[in-house]
Amino acid sequence: MQNFVMHNPTKIIFGRDTIQQIGSEAAALGKKALLVYGKSSIKNNGIYEQTTSALKNEGIEIIEHAGVKSNPVISHVREGIRLAKTQKVDLIIAVGGGSVIDSAKAISAGATVDHDVWLFFKGKKSIKSKLPLACVLTLAAAGSEMNGGMVVTNEDTLEKFGIGNKLLHPEVSILDPTATFTVPADYTAFGAIDAIAHILEFYFTASDPETPVQDRIMEGLIINIMDSCERVLMQPEDYNARADLMWCATLALNGLTAAGLGRVGFPMHMIEHSLSAIYDVPHGAGLSIVMPGWMTHESTKNPQKFAQFGRRIFNIRKENEVEIAREGIKRLKEWFEKVAAPTSLSAIGVPKEDIDRIAENAMGLAKIWRLQEYNTDRVKDILQLCR
Amino acid sequence: MQNFVMHNPTKIIFGRDTIQQIGSEAAALGKKALLVYGKSSIKNNGIYEQTTSALKNEGIEIIEHAGVKSNPVISHVREGIRLAKTQKVDLIIAVGGGSVIDSAKAISAGATVDHDVWLFFKGKKSIKSKLPLACVLTLAAAGSEMNGGMVVTNEDTLEKFGIGNKLLHPEVSILDPTATFTVPADYTAFGAIDAIAHILEFYFTASDPETPVQDRIMEGLIINIMDSCERVLMQPEDYNARADLMWCATLALNGLTAAGLGRVGFPMHMIEHSLSAIYDVPHGAGLSIVMPGWMTHESTKNPQKFAQFGRRIFNIRKENEVEIAREGIKRLKEWFEKVAAPTSLSAIGVPKEDIDRIAENAMGLAKIWRLQEYNTDRVKDILQLCR
Repeated sequence: MQNFVMHNPTKIIFGRDTIQQIGSEAAALGKKALLVYGKSSIKNNGIYEQTTSALKNEGIEIIEHAGVKSNPVISHVREGIRLAKTQKVDLIIAVGGGSVIDSAKAISAGATVDHDVWLFFKGKKSIKSKLPLACVLTLAAAGSEMNGGMVVTNEDTLEKFGIGNKLLHPEVSILDPTATFTVPADYTAFGAIDAIAHILEFYFTASDPETPVQDRIMEGLIINIMDSCERVLMQPEDYNARADLMWCATLALNGLTAAGLGRVGFPMHMIEHSLSAIYDVPHGAGLSIVMPGWMTHESTKNPQKFAQFGRRIFNIRKENEVEIAREGIKRLKEWFEKVAAPTSLSAIGVPKEDIDRIAENAMGLAKIWRLQEYNTDRVKDILQLCR
Repeated sequence: MQNFVMHNPTKIIFGRDTIQQIGSEAAALGKKALLVYGKSSIKNNGIYEQTTSALKNEGIEIIEHAGVKSNPVISHVREGIRLAKTQKVDLIIAVGGGSVIDSAKAISAGATVDHDVWLFFKGKKSIKSKLPLACVLTLAAAGSEMNGGMVVTNEDTLEKFGIGNKLLHPEVSILDPTATFTVPADYTAFGAIDAIAHILEFYFTASDPETPVQDRIMEGLIINIMDSCERVLMQPEDYNARADLMWCATLALNGLTAAGLGRVGFPMHMIEHSLSAIYDVPHGAGLSIVMPGWMTHESTKNPQKFAQFGRRIFNIRKENEVEIAREGIKRLKEWFEKVAAPTSLSAIGVPKEDIDRIAENAMGLAKIWRLQEYNTDRVKDILQLCR
C-alpha cells in the first residue's frame, strides 16, 4: 500500500425526503445564493420547487443561473461567475448531476478571483479560495458531489479538461434517490457506466500492485452498480435499486477507492473526453465505447489483474489467466450492450478516418493529466480496438 | 437502504515515515498540548521520541499524561482533565491505540466543562465542545482514530460504557503501519478480532435487510482482516500486511460500513464489555469468546444472512442455508483458535457460576445502548453458548 492523505469534509445527507434540508444547510453557509441548474427536468419533477421553497423559507435570496448542459462549457461558467460577482452572492447551490455540480464548482472558485477561470484548468493558476457550495444531486454518475474534482469543456478550443483541488469539496450534498426516479433509461445506464469507469481507471492503473482491500471494495461496488442498474432499468422507481446505484456512484470517486493505490491515471477518461469534446456524445456513452478497447489493449501487459476482474466480477472459472482476462472484458462489453449503451465508434457514427483527430485531441489532456506513457500512436492503437 | 448522514471530517495521514507530521499538524491546532499515552511501549519502539521531537521542533509545549491502561479507566481520565485544566492546554495529543485515543477524547470533552466527565457516559449530559485532538495510532483495532466514539470503564461501578458524538472525531490521525511492527502476536490478533466484531455487529444487526453494497464492503474488509492478520503473525514486519490490517480496522468503524443500515446494535460488545469490566480481559479476547456464542444463538432467527456470511467469507458451498450458517460460525471460531485467541469462558478461567453476574452487568449497558430486545435471560442463554 502506498502512502495517502484522506480528508473528505463533505457532509452527505442521504435518503428519502431529504431535499428540503437544503434550506437549513444553505442558511448555515450564506444568505444570497446563485442557484445553478440545467434545463427543465428539475422543474418537471418538482425538485426545483422543493429546493427553492426550502431556500425561501430560510430567507435565502436566490439568483438563478440555469442552462448548464451535459458536457458543461466554460462560456456558461464565465456567465455564472459574472452573475455571482455582480450580484455579490455568498453561496453557490447546485441542483443537478455532475455537469451542474462541476459548473457550480468552477463558478465558486472563479467568483473569488480576478483572472479568467480557464487558467485553473490549464494549470496556470491554482485554486486558493472559493464560495461555499451546497448540492442537491439528481443523477447517479459523476461522484462530484463528494470530491474535489471538476470537468469543464472549453468549446472554443475543444478541450474537455478536469482538475482536482481539496477546496472544491462541496460543504454539503443532499442525495435523495427519488430525485433520480425520472432519469431516463439511457442516462441511467450512462451514469452507471461512468461510475464503473471511475473504479476501473483506479483498479487497472494503480502504481501499487498490492492493494487487496481496495480491490475488494472496488469489486463490490462494480457488482452492485451493475446489479442495481439492471434493477432500475426494469423498474425505474425501485427505491432500493436507485439508492444503491446512487451511493455506489458516490463511493466510486470520493477518495475511498483510490486511497493507497499510489499513482493512478485516467486514460479511458482522457480518450473519452476527446470524443465528448468533438462529437458532444454523452460521457457514459463515450466510455462504453472506449473501455472495452482500452482494456483489451492493456490486458496483455497485466493479465493477472484483468483475470482477477473476470473471476471476481463475472465468476469466470478457467485455467488460463489470459483467457479469463479476455472473457471478463467480453462480458463487460456484453453488459454495456445489455443496458443499451454503444460499444463502438461506428455505433455513434464516427468514421475510422476520424481516429487520428480524436487521438491528437486526447493527447492535449495527456500532458495536463501527466499520462506520460501515452503517445498519439498508442491512443490510435486503442481507438482501432474501439471501432 | 435507510436514510443516513455521513460527515467524517477527520484527516487521515497514512503511511511510512508520516509520524513526524504530527508537528505541523499539531501546530495548526494549538500551542500547549496534553500528551496522552500508555506505558513504556512507545518509548521502547521510538515513537515517543519521534512524536515529542516533532512537537518540540514546532515549539509546542508538552504536558505529559502517561499511564493509560487497556480498558481505560475514568479515574485516569479525570486526572487528565485536571491536568488539562490546571495547565491550560489548548490541544490534546493521543499516541497509542483505542484505549489511549478514547481516554484522550474523554479528556478533550471533559476539559471544557465543569461537571464530572462520567455524566457524558451515563447520558446525563451531552457533549457540546471539546479541545482539538490529534492522534498517532499504534494499534490496528478500535477504529477510534476516525470516528466519534469512545469507551471508558468506571472502575468504581464496574461499568464499561461507550458513547458517540460527532464532535469526538479527531481533527487529524496519523496512521503509520510501521508503528505496529512491535505489537505482539496476541494483541495483533485481538485487534483484528475487534475490527471483525465491529463489522459483524453491523452486518448481523442492521434493521434494513437490503444493504447489498454495504454487505460487499463489509465482507471485503473481513476477508482482508483475516488474511492480513495471518500474514502479520507469520512476519510481524510485513509492511503491506500491517498496512492492510491497519486500514481495514479504521474503515471497519468510520461510518462507511454503517451508512444506510438503519438501526444497528452492539450486542456482542455489550456482553464483552461486561467481561472486560469484571475480569479485565483484553477486549479482543473477550470478543472471540462472545462472538461464536452470540452468532450461534442469533443465526436461527436469520439464517439467510449468516449463510451469506459463510458463503462469501469462507466459500462454503452447501444446499442448506442453516448448515452453511452453522459451518460459517464454526469456521470463524476455528480462525480465532488459529490466531490463538480464546473461544470459551473456561479458557480464561471464568466458571459457569459467574454467568448470572456477567449477564446482570451486561444489562446495565443494554439500557444506555437501547438494546431493548435483550434481557438478562437472553444474555444468559448466549453466555451458556460461550462456555
